[in-house]
Amino acid sequence: MITGKSFIGFTQKSSGNTAYRTINPKLNVENEWSFTEATSEEIDEAVQMAWSAFKVYRNTPEKERAMFLSSIADEIEALGDELVSVYCSESGLPEGRAIGERNRTIFQLRSFAEMLHSDDWKQISIDTAIPDRSPAPKPDLRRSVLPLGPIAVFGSSNFPLAYSTAGGDTASALAAGCPVVVKSHPMHAGTGELIAGAIVRAAQKTGMPEGVFSNLNSKGIEVGQRLVKHPKIKAVGFTGSIRGGRALLDLAAQRSEPIPVFAEMGSINPVVITQKALEKNGSKWAETYAGSITLGTGQFCTNPGLILGVKSSELTAFTKTLAEKIVTIDPMVMLHPNIKSAYGKLKSEVTDQNGVQVLSEPIAVENNYADQAVATVDGATFLNNPKLHTEVFGPFSIVVQCDNEAQLLEIIENLEGQLTGTIIAEDEDLPSLSSIVDEMRQRVGRLIFNGVPTGVEVCPSMNHGGPYPSSTDPRFTAVGTHSVRRWVRLISYQNMPESLLPNELKNGQN
Amino acid sequence: MITGKSFIGFTQKSSGNTAYRTINPKLNVENEWSFTEATSEEIDEAVQMAWSAFKVYRNTPEKERAMFLSSIADEIEALGDELVSVYCSESGLPEGRAIGERNRTIFQLRSFAEMLHSDDWKQISIDTAIPDRSPAPKPDLRRSVLPLGPIAVFGSSNFPLAYSTAGGDTASALAAGCPVVVKSHPMHAGTGELIAGAIVRAAQKTGMPEGVFSNLNSKGIEVGQRLVKHPKIKAVGFTGSIRGGRALLDLAAQRSEPIPVFAEMGSINPVVITQKALEKNGSKWAETYAGSITLGTGQFCTNPGLILGVKSSELTAFTKTLAEKIVTIDPMVMLHPNIKSAYGKLKSEVTDQNGVQVLSEPIAVENNYADQAVATVDGATFLNNPKLHTEVFGPFSIVVQCDNEAQLLEIIENLEGQLTGTIIAEDEDLPSLSSIVDEMRQRVGRLIFNGVPTGVEVCPSMNHGGPYPSSTDPRFTAVGTHSVRRWVRLISYQNMPESLLPNELKNGQN
Repeated sequence: MITGKSFIGFTQKSSGNTAYRTINPKLNVENEWSFTEATSEEIDEAVQMAWSAFKVYRNTPEKERAMFLSSIADEIEALGDELVSVYCSESGLPEGRAIGERNRTIFQLRSFAEMLHSDDWKQISIDTAIPDRSPAPKPDLRRSVLPLGPIAVFGSSNFPLAYSTAGGDTASALAAGCPVVVKSHPMHAGTGELIAGAIVRAAQKTGMPEGVFSNLNSKGIEVGQRLVKHPKIKAVGFTGSIRGGRALLDLAAQRSEPIPVFAEMGSINPVVITQKALEKNGSKWAETYAGSITLGTGQFCTNPGLILGVKSSELTAFTKTLAEKIVTIDPMVMLHPNIKSAYGKLKSEVTDQNGVQVLSEPIAVENNYADQAVATVDGATFLNNPKLHTEVFGPFSIVVQCDNEAQLLEIIENLEGQLTGTIIAEDEDLPSLSSIVDEMRQRVGRLIFNGVPTGVEVCPSMNHGGPYPSSTDPRFTAVGTHSVRRWVRLISYQNMPESLLPNELKNGQN
Repeated sequence: MITGKSFIGFTQKSSGNTAYRTINPKLNVENEWSFTEATSEEIDEAVQMAWSAFKVYRNTPEKERAMFLSSIADEIEALGDELVSVYCSESGLPEGRAIGERNRTIFQLRSFAEMLHSDDWKQISIDTAIPDRSPAPKPDLRRSVLPLGPIAVFGSSNFPLAYSTAGGDTASALAAGCPVVVKSHPMHAGTGELIAGAIVRAAQKTGMPEGVFSNLNSKGIEVGQRLVKHPKIKAVGFTGSIRGGRALLDLAAQRSEPIPVFAEMGSINPVVITQKALEKNGSKWAETYAGSITLGTGQFCTNPGLILGVKSSELTAFTKTLAEKIVTIDPMVMLHPNIKSAYGKLKSEVTDQNGVQVLSEPIAVENNYADQAVATVDGATFLNNPKLHTEVFGPFSIVVQCDNEAQLLEIIENLEGQLTGTIIAEDEDLPSLSSIVDEMRQRVGRLIFNGVPTGVEVCPSMNHGGPYPSSTDPRFTAVGTHSVRRWVRLISYQNMPESLLPNELKNGQN
């Protein structure tokens, strides 16, 4: 049952008087539940409880934390159909996607639980003493990690489960030993409350301290701002727009104690397609990309918004096929009226630029449905107009027709940082691809060969992040167990007696 | 020979007209050499060359980078007595220290060269494909790291070699594949120029691209500011004061592309001594700490500036002995007149606070020699007056006499972040130390048992860094090969053909 209240620790509260509702974008009506924005007092109480919980939680044995994470996964499963139905009502995404994303969220939680059964993630290093070293004895030094403290998590609109309340940021922070305070996403507050309830029940069942998790309802930006500025918040996880992520980064940087912000933000995910690939498989790739561009109504952070090739009749044919295929796909609904209107506005801003030609036929759509589109522009125009590099969040892509490979390389070198880059080529291209690979990998967090960027595999080798502005710190990833490193810091112990060392550093443990 | 010029790539230049000299603090006279501050054009040229060099240097085989680093070590050795004599003239530090620090600097360079002979530092992870996985095939994903780009390095006044021109920041950045632009420290510009010359000769001998290293003379803050704001600088390494490090952090955060800053800054390095340790070995520890507090004229970032104990006649006796012992040590010269005057000012600011009592006899000193001192204060006064938490850079320490262990724990919990913390205890204390260990390790980057914090062992398990403000990011270390992580970021390759993968990710390499 959805109450519309925040979770302050284990207790649901709604002492404020700012109410809001979520929207069913498909029906274009408000959903039935009314949510109450968290008050300043509730925010402070949640953080204070997180701080008290931290003193206990940081020292819980990893096996107990693993049980907590597994129990969250179980409780989410136990939400059953209600979760799927609320998710669909609040996002417009289809049931199959809801179930797939739920499975992924559960898989992530269990992956972190599994991670906690070994000490591999702790950056352990042991140097034993050399007492008779000259000129001075070498001390015994052992390194491990400690959790940073309470983490503020901001979920994304486009993944109401996997990158939200119990998504990768929350799962990795809880695994690290950090309490989490979530700023609930206003577009899926009901989904958020259901998941928050699951986390709280799991915490209670596995004996975790109250305050290890809170969920703060928020309509505007004030709740998030207060959270990030709170002295007892020690890091921030965010998934969303460049503007939103940068605002939090700036706030965190201005604190008297600056704190790390990991924000995964915008990206246009460039794709390079070679002349040989166009010749041999142009039509197949056009069809594949029509699907990738429209997947999830184009609302993936890895959506391919930019396709680069060298001018040729085959590139023209590819672009034409892509434009034809994309309009044969049934228009799909976007997450929210605000996202639909932003899509229309940003798309126009790009297509209204000089030299940009829309190739796809206009599609008539109603309400919150998106009219997918493909445009094209020449290389010099793209290079000289940064407006064309803007992410258009939705089912839109622009094909850039470069004069030659040198111009294509120049475009890549001058691109803003990206989550992904893709190279589409044939075997006979391989010997001559090294410049493209080298320039492309400098600008991206993940380089894909002969595939599509949409779809982020959850596994240890995944990197989901990249040079600014695709993320705020390319030294970390948002996906995969390696993402736990965002929330832990280093500590060395010098000449510590065995009994005072943490278990992972005791003799015979490694 | 010292020319007073900057190194812009391999070429020495001095087109500006702001001249300055270094000071011999022992003799209190200017040294003979005149240095010319780098101009804006020279700064931009150095960064532009670093950017061009990056395109080549990032792809040099690790074995060649290792040869470059080893060659720097050889060239520094070859500087012989001139380096030692200039170092002593510019720092006032004794010859033995110069030789020891030179050995450490060479050892660091060779450690990074050694590191490059394996791929262990590259955070490698390989997940092979599962083509028949249901519902979707699992792609082949492989993760490694890439260098961030040109790094700006700001050396510290107190370690003219090991934390300066060819110190840990430069060695780790060059190992990572990042060109380095050093802002030369004005207090040891001659030492810096000699070392820069050694690096340039090593680069030329081992065929590294011009621009892989530059050294910019600077008198004021403008050179460093321009460097940090330059769009082609991709990260910053700094060792120095909180004020200086924070200023660079703020500048970097305000860039349109924010960049990582690793600044290792101030610390008062708390020491807790138990009642049993005082009873059994109080006098021995007082003597040991008189030595640690005055080591290097107290100019170590790990200098123990704060000693905490619970009120007792034994603590009083310890404090008295410490005060007596410390004044028996011959006063030593500080690095620079500015550092001497800051020491006097900061020491007075602390000792003038209400409730602070100076215990040591005043010492008469001349010019740049430091008058070491020990003061004491009660726990409540210390807790409520943040002025008393200020780092007094020099041979000074304050003993806090707490009412009880609860107050001692409260003081630790409320301390600013520290590079180190030390616990001095007897075996019979061990069962009851867990609270002190837990609170202390939350505030420090390295926890030492029954020793002194001064002296930073260079080995893989060392952590030199800590919670803010002791460093700007406690997830990284400034010392040890692990410090290379500051300058590399993650990249994943998805379904890449073998021939396009970097060597470390090819099949059969792992």
